[in-house]
Order: sequence, then structure tokens, then C-alpha cells
Amino acid sequence: MANHFADRLCTAVKSKKTSLVVGLDPVYSRLPEAIKNHRDMNDEFDAAAAVDAIFDFCTQTMRIVAPMVPAVKINIAFFEKYLWEGVETYYSLISEADNLGLEIIGDIKRCDIGHTAAAYAAAHLQNPELVGLEDTLAPDAITINGYTGTDGIEPFADMAAQQGKGVFVLVRSSNPSAAAVQDFTDADGQTMYERIAEIVGQIANEAERIGSSGYSNVGMIVGGTTTEVTAALRQKYDKVWFLVPGYGSQGASAADCVRFCKPDGTGALINASRSIIYAYEKPKYKEQFGDDWKRCIEQAVIDAKIDLAKAM
Amino acid sequence: MANHFADRLCTAVKSKKTSLVVGLDPVYSRLPEAIKNHRDMNDEFDAAAAVDAIFDFCTQTMRIVAPMVPAVKINIAFFEKYLWEGVETYYSLISEADNLGLEIIGDIKRCDIGHTAAAYAAAHLQNPELVGLEDTLAPDAITINGYTGTDGIEPFADMAAQQGKGVFVLVRSSNPSAAAVQDFTDADGQTMYERIAEIVGQIANEAERIGSSGYSNVGMIVGGTTTEVTAALRQKYDKVWFLVPGYGSQGASAADCVRFCKPDGTGALINASRSIIYAYEKPKYKEQFGDDWKRCIEQAVIDAKIDLAKAM
Repeated sequence: MANHFADRLCTAVKSKKTSLVVGLDPVYSRLPEAIKNHRDMNDEFDAAAAVDAIFDFCTQTMRIVAPMVPAVKINIAFFEKYLWEGVETYYSLISEADNLGLEIIGDIKRCDIGHTAAAYAAAHLQNPELVGLEDTLAPDAITINGYTGTDGIEPFADMAAQQGKGVFVLVRSSNPSAAAVQDFTDADGQTMYERIAEIVGQIANEAERIGSSGYSNVGMIVGGTTTEVTAALRQKYDKVWFLVPGYGSQGASAADCVRFCKPDGTGALINASRSIIYAYEKPKYKEQFGDDWKRCIEQAVIDAKIDLAKAM
Repeated sequence: MANHFADRLCTAVKSKKTSLVVGLDPVYSRLPEAIKNHRDMNDEFDAAAAVDAIFDFCTQTMRIVAPMVPAVKINIAFFEKYLWEGVETYYSLISEADNLGLEIIGDIKRCDIGHTAAAYAAAHLQNPELVGLEDTLAPDAITINGYTGTDGIEPFADMAAQQGKGVFVLVRSSNPSAAAVQDFTDADGQTMYERIAEIVGQIANEAERIGSSGYSNVGMIVGGTTTEVTAALRQKYDKVWFLVPGYGSQGASAADCVRFCKPDGTGALINASRSIIYAYEKPKYKEQFGDDWKRCIEQAVIDAKIDLAKAM
């Protein structure tokens, strides 16, 4: 296995023939009845039982999607909600995903400076054998926030490089109120997100961060809903992988998202979370597959892959 | 006890007669020998033993400082480094701090949008009895990052209001590279951090967020090293508590920091972390108190309080 995150991504995207990434944002109340009923528990007020159910659901979901997609994105917020039990489950899922041959993105959006950033980098990118937890793995890449500038990005980028891992820095998010901050524009017409992209690009383009695939281990997060910004960023930062949220439930179309891909299909990971993992809630799949929630998820992945492939 | 975070802060600052907050950023290798030796362990490669030592150190430190300061700030990065064991220790320390009557700020700098922000808010502001952990407490306030705009701030502000707690949003950080992002300036001369302050200020000033003290439960983080911005923000956002990092090890002077305080001493929390908790490393205290690390910390708090009081 390549010891450079960007190289592993290239291989994975080419072998699975898709940029689609499945995002795991599990909410107990939305789990399939079969998983909830399986447990001898009342409700989510029992943290240990709730995280067990969430672990089951995520593991089974990953087994379905692993042959079809290059990576999963695990959103730690939905695990932190169950405090340390949830965090343990987050790390258990990383091991499961690794066993399934998936690239794993820890969606953690951490942000701080200096020695605090270094502590976060150690927590989330360094394989935990260093703190005596030999069987525990850190994810292949994490998401961070770049509002503190270079000081807040480099400690993560350096740890990632040392560990053969990656970092995606939030450049332009896909929510409505992002514009008030991220489209803030200077006298020369440069926006805030373009400035952040410039700072990230400088770090990403440092020679030692570039793998044999020509891509850097430092990438950018740019929402699929912001179509006007896509082409410019893709062209300007040709060594960068983009992580693209917003496809599916957040309203970005396949055409909006695939603009981040290069002609060979590499260069972007297009994330769909709720539209895949809760596919069994949709009448479209329910009617076809009834209570077979796994089959619903499988079909949602197939449909999303076709949708993206057609748009390419 | 007042059910509004800002009101509790006012009471605490007036009763302890200082704005000084002690920040806990514990690094195992820097713990006093007495704490490290006390343990039957080799080094930090044993996570459980390391977090036990860190818990001991933080608990003893809090007992020393509790009679003298209104609040502690616990930096979760230094606990996440030890994965779920570390996170459990973070929550244990919150209970200890609460028993000591301290206001507790969880320095977590989370940032996301919509349902992810809501999940983080539940994790870090809602008392965890909701997930069946009856004896566990969430902190009185947390720090967040506002780069995603209103969508990323309101879920935290709303949960905080509901729980009688608070939120501090990062406006201007104290690190050298912050300027490239946060001082980014539009054609009218407004900077990025001023824009973020405006967004935070709008949320903070909503009537239902203001306590009987006249302060909001939504505050701002502005580094003590950025003296030129202080007066303007203090004047413009008179209902806001400022959390001011940078005093001590990061180089901001007492005079730089107390500019955020109103004449009655309220309105700002001035944080010192390493300059207090590692006081026993300083020749100045070592010469006076030898191996008595607790006495060193106590004296460092006394000295910092005098330093700030003189500057007022």
C-alpha cells in the first residue's frame, strides 16, 4: 500500500471507478428498526447501547459500500455526542474500515494554533501505538479549519506527511450563511475563501508533500453547492485533492460536483452522507426493497455512482 | 447559582476580584517529578497511566487555584491525544472543577454547520444525563470557530441558552500567521475579524441571550497580543464577554489584556496557561520554593493577579 495518502486515493478512485465517498453521520433515532429492535434497550438514553447500535449500523453499512467506493468519511460529532464511549466507537469503526480496505477520512474540523494544533494532530493522525494502544488506528486523513492561518495548518500537514496521511482544509463550505464570511472580498476582488485557498495551496505545493501521483497530501474542502468557484480552484490548484460536500441531501447536483474531477476521474472526493445511509427512509427504495435496509443503501450507492458517472 | 452563564461569570469575577483564568494544557512530559514518580509507570506510552497522572496534576492544580480565580479553561486537545481515555478524563475534570465552584470553559474550538453543529453542541454543552451518564457534566461554556457564519454559531448559541451556558466564538487569534486571514480587509476598510465580530455581535445582542447582568451568553475570543483592535471591539460590543488568550507565555502584557475589562473589572476573562501550570519550571519560583510545585503554581497565580490588578 502506497505510503502517501494522495497516491492511495488515486489507486482507490481508479479501482472503484468513482469519486463517491460515503459519509457516516449516524443518528440513533434514524437507524433501521431491525438494528434498534435487535437491542434490548429502550432508547438512546442508554449511551452504551446506543453506540453499540450505531457501531453495528456503521459496520454493516461499510461492508455494503466497501466494494463500491474508495473511502468513507466518519463525522466525529455524531460519536462525541456519546462522550468517551462514542469516541471509542469512532476508533473502532476506523479499524473496521481499514480491514475493509477503505480509505478513511475523519471529519473532525479541528482548529487551533501552535502546541494545541500539534496535540490535535497527534490525537487524530498519529497511529495510537504511541500511547500504548497498539490495535488502534488513526484515520488516513482528517478535515481541519484554516481560520488561524499557516500556524494552524502546518502542524497537521507535517504530522500527516510523517504518517503517510492527509489533511483537508475547509476553504468554502456549502451552507447558506457561509457567504457572509467566506465571500468577504478585498479591494482587489479576492475573496476570503480564495485567500485561504492561496495559503493552503502554498503549503500543499511544497515539493516534499507531493506524491508520485502528482497530488499533495494537503487538500481543500469546497462545497458542491458553490458551482461558480469550482472551475477556477480546480485549475489553479492542480496538485490538490478536493473534498466536496453537498451532493445529495444538501442539494448539489452531480454536474456541480464532478467539475472538481480531472478528466481521469481523480482529484476530487464527492461526499454523500444522509442520502445514502438513510436510503431506506426514501419511498423510492422502500417500495422496491421493503424492510431490506441494506439493499436500499446498496442501491443508493449504485444510483449515485451512475449519476456521477453520467455527469462526467 | 444563576442560570445564566454571563451572570455567573460576573459574580465569580467580582468575588475572586480578578479576570484571571487558569488554562489547563497538560503535557505529560512536563508534569512535576513528584507526580510522574508517584506512578508505577515508565513513560507516556501507557495511555491509562499517563491520563491518571494528568488527572492528578490537573485536580491538584485546580484545588490550588479555585479559591483565587473565577474559572478554568480546559483544552481538550491535550486529552484527545489519549483518545477515549483522555476524553473520559476531560469530563472527570469538569466534575472536579464544578465541585470546586469554578466556572469551566471547554476549549474545543469546534466548527461545523447544521445538524453536525447541533451534534457537537449536544456533545459539549448539554449535560450528559441525556445519554444516561447521570454523574457527568458538560462545561459551563465552550469555544467555537465561526468561519461557517451564522449557521455554524446559532446551534451552539441556542443550546447554550437552553442549558444556561455560554459560547465564545474565535474572532482574532493571537498567533503570528493569523493576520494573513483575520486582517484580510475589504474595500471599505473592514477586516475579516471585524466582520466575524459583527456576525457574533448580532447573535450575542439578541434580547433573549442577555442576562440580568447585561451581558450575553455569547462571547468573543480576541488575543491579548492584538492591542490595536481591543478598544474598538470593547466599545462596540458592550454586552459581550471577551476571552483573551495570550497573557503570559504568548507575550501579551497585563496592560494589553486589561483593556478588555470594563471599569468594574467584568467583561473579560484573561487566560494564562503554561505560565501558571508550569511555574515550577521557572528559576524564579524554583529558587524560592524548591520542589514544592504546588507552592510555585500558587505564587504564579498571586503574581499574575497582582500584575493584572496593577494594570487596571
